[in-house]
Amino acid sequence: MRVAVLGCGTVGSALVGILQDRADALAVQSGARFEIAGIAVNDLSVDRPSHVPVGLLTTDAEGLVADPSVGVVVELIGGVVPTEQLIRMALEAGKPVVTANKALLASPEGVRLRSLANERGVDLLYEAAVAGAIPLVRALRESLTGDRIHRVMGIVNGTTNFILTKMSEQGADYADVLAEAQALGLAERDPTADVEGFDAAAKAAILAGVAFGYDVAGAEVMREGITAVRAVDIDFADRFGYVVKLLAIVERTGDDALSVRVHPAMVPKSHPLAGVRDAFNAVFIEGEAAGELMLYGQGAGGLPTASAVVGDLIDATRNLLAGTTAPSPGRLPARLLPEFELQTQYYIGLEVTDRPGVLAAVTKVFGDNDVSIRSMEQEGYAGEARLLFLTHTAREGDVRATLRTLATLDTVERIGGVMRVVGDSG
Amino acid sequence: MRVAVLGCGTVGSALVGILQDRADALAVQSGARFEIAGIAVNDLSVDRPSHVPVGLLTTDAEGLVADPSVGVVVELIGGVVPTEQLIRMALEAGKPVVTANKALLASPEGVRLRSLANERGVDLLYEAAVAGAIPLVRALRESLTGDRIHRVMGIVNGTTNFILTKMSEQGADYADVLAEAQALGLAERDPTADVEGFDAAAKAAILAGVAFGYDVAGAEVMREGITAVRAVDIDFADRFGYVVKLLAIVERTGDDALSVRVHPAMVPKSHPLAGVRDAFNAVFIEGEAAGELMLYGQGAGGLPTASAVVGDLIDATRNLLAGTTAPSPGRLPARLLPEFELQTQYYIGLEVTDRPGVLAAVTKVFGDNDVSIRSMEQEGYAGEARLLFLTHTAREGDVRATLRTLATLDTVERIGGVMRVVGDSG
Repeated sequence: MRVAVLGCGTVGSALVGILQDRADALAVQSGARFEIAGIAVNDLSVDRPSHVPVGLLTTDAEGLVADPSVGVVVELIGGVVPTEQLIRMALEAGKPVVTANKALLASPEGVRLRSLANERGVDLLYEAAVAGAIPLVRALRESLTGDRIHRVMGIVNGTTNFILTKMSEQGADYADVLAEAQALGLAERDPTADVEGFDAAAKAAILAGVAFGYDVAGAEVMREGITAVRAVDIDFADRFGYVVKLLAIVERTGDDALSVRVHPAMVPKSHPLAGVRDAFNAVFIEGEAAGELMLYGQGAGGLPTASAVVGDLIDATRNLLAGTTAPSPGRLPARLLPEFELQTQYYIGLEVTDRPGVLAAVTKVFGDNDVSIRSMEQEGYAGEARLLFLTHTAREGDVRATLRTLATLDTVERIGGVMRVVGDSG
Repeated sequence: MRVAVLGCGTVGSALVGILQDRADALAVQSGARFEIAGIAVNDLSVDRPSHVPVGLLTTDAEGLVADPSVGVVVELIGGVVPTEQLIRMALEAGKPVVTANKALLASPEGVRLRSLANERGVDLLYEAAVAGAIPLVRALRESLTGDRIHRVMGIVNGTTNFILTKMSEQGADYADVLAEAQALGLAERDPTADVEGFDAAAKAAILAGVAFGYDVAGAEVMREGITAVRAVDIDFADRFGYVVKLLAIVERTGDDALSVRVHPAMVPKSHPLAGVRDAFNAVFIEGEAAGELMLYGQGAGGLPTASAVVGDLIDATRNLLAGTTAPSPGRLPARLLPEFELQTQYYIGLEVTDRPGVLAAVTKVFGDNDVSIRSMEQEGYAGEARLLFLTHTAREGDVRATLRTLATLDTVERIGGVMRVVGDSG
């Protein structure tokens, strides 16, 4: 089985290493011996690990995909251009494609490629695109396919989980921890894609497809990053038995509506997601029959991601030899829940003037907007006070109306942290 | 697709319910509409949930399996007799079999049935046999098939995890918590299979096959239950940053040797397995490329187990319609590591006479047997003292020799807890 490898970064070169080192075992597993037909790169002059055979490098990605001796294509370039075109060529030629490209899969182009793969009866596999080495896509697509999934919640971005873990364990501020993560190579120089939740939103969109069969694009996902999370919010969360995590959540909210969102959330310490530390990923699944499941592991890195690619490569090869494809039920267009209709619990922190009647005025605003308070804590400091509220389950629109009115009160100096609470009973 | 259901206990009746309630969705997923051909039971007069169609019940299991209209067989009776015979009949007739029968799979008869399935090119699928709803078998068989697995460690018995969790969180004694578990229906009246580790040993044997491709029988597994675990050991573990878990461990110990064992172990609190509470199961996998993975979920119960059965049923049906089978690489006979060759860390608690020179005498015995002490704590009480040791990695044979010699010392009143330490560095 001749394999075209498109891209030779961290994951591509790790993949080449595995295909070399484990050649015999892979042949037994897949039923065919893998042979690298070529490795498409942008620039031949870049330094690469010594195990990458220089003779296989080519800048002609299209020629490589079109090579009639190539049976399967692995796309590890990333982005929408030129990958969409290359994957389309492969699928139209009946060649299965394995990709780790979450940005493409969560784009409208990705949705069309999935349809094309279905029409042509060719595998387009992407275990590596969400949560790296964690066998999540296969679990949802195959093991849980007979179940009715209610909710999938994941820590799917290692950079932000690293930052939140450090903030929580060291009491450190966001900016300091971000700088540390950048120094360690765990955050990009421009961290926007991670810290503003764009990366997690793309993964949430893919999960909506795999777990629920709905076509959702990353741009449609309700999205809030972690840049507004303050040390004081994390400290409050800790005292009340919560940790703060950036979660990608896909949830049924009715027979045919789906809430797909990414935001920081307070998670009870007893929840399995609470113990997921540092750059690890985990996805928590709630199924009608299966109950609660969690899959945990490394969400990024060359070898872990390449290991997921290899699993798909074996799968695609076995399917090709058997003349079949991986299960890929038809997709439905999603009816997404409007943001203001979301129902969840909220944490709200207010800084107020410390004088009589403030609490009554503030709680009246909550009541007027149908937001029920579950617990409140008041801390005084230097003529001011901090009011910390946890609400019962409330409507996002009502909470936003509450916050708008609170901001107009003379006694309210500042609206501090506002964060959704997830995985709790109440 | 006509399905023969053998057995109608908790799992069987939950399966019948899912096949009824989710009929349309399952037809889309599997490519065929499931129809229950019959439900084999021992006794027609037993009361059953109202959704189980009485007209489908039969006491003629053999006749049901042999029915030419039956395409696939689900075995949920348990035990080796008559299930081995029924599964053999099905496989010989080319009918795929889905089973949750861990006792059978871990028996020599189970090994022969797997060979038979391979020879005949018929699926014998058993996701539900280990860790209930957790998609573990498929993850190991498919997603991680290209990886080299170093170690698999699991909490695979919910009853013992419930007991250890309660002992740990309430400081309660084993006997009291066992009685509570029995009252809650979480432990059998005769709890031997759970508390002595027989159930976990069968699952360890199955994992050795799925993760490493070795044929191991449950009876070959090194096994220690939780009946000797004392509140004082759990308390010590807690103070030193550990929790006590009953683990099933399958580990490569050389190119072709495998250590397969079940025993209580002290696990660092920061380890993902440490947070698995109550009756939940979890399996921690260490792969060369994938790194650390953990799969968590409900290990038992009618619906969760039935959900795993349904996943397999869809898989078997899709494979049957496509004329293929699930990957099932050939098995090798295992060379099992002899118990005394095991290398791990140990916790050892001794009760000694509180007089000068005792510590020197005791530590000399450790040193004479090549067991290196990592840390020690001494507690005095009423003329006696308790010495608590953590060793560096040592050989099981050397530790046993140490204990034998310690038992002969005048100053050693009693050897208290001895427990292996797992998942730590050192």
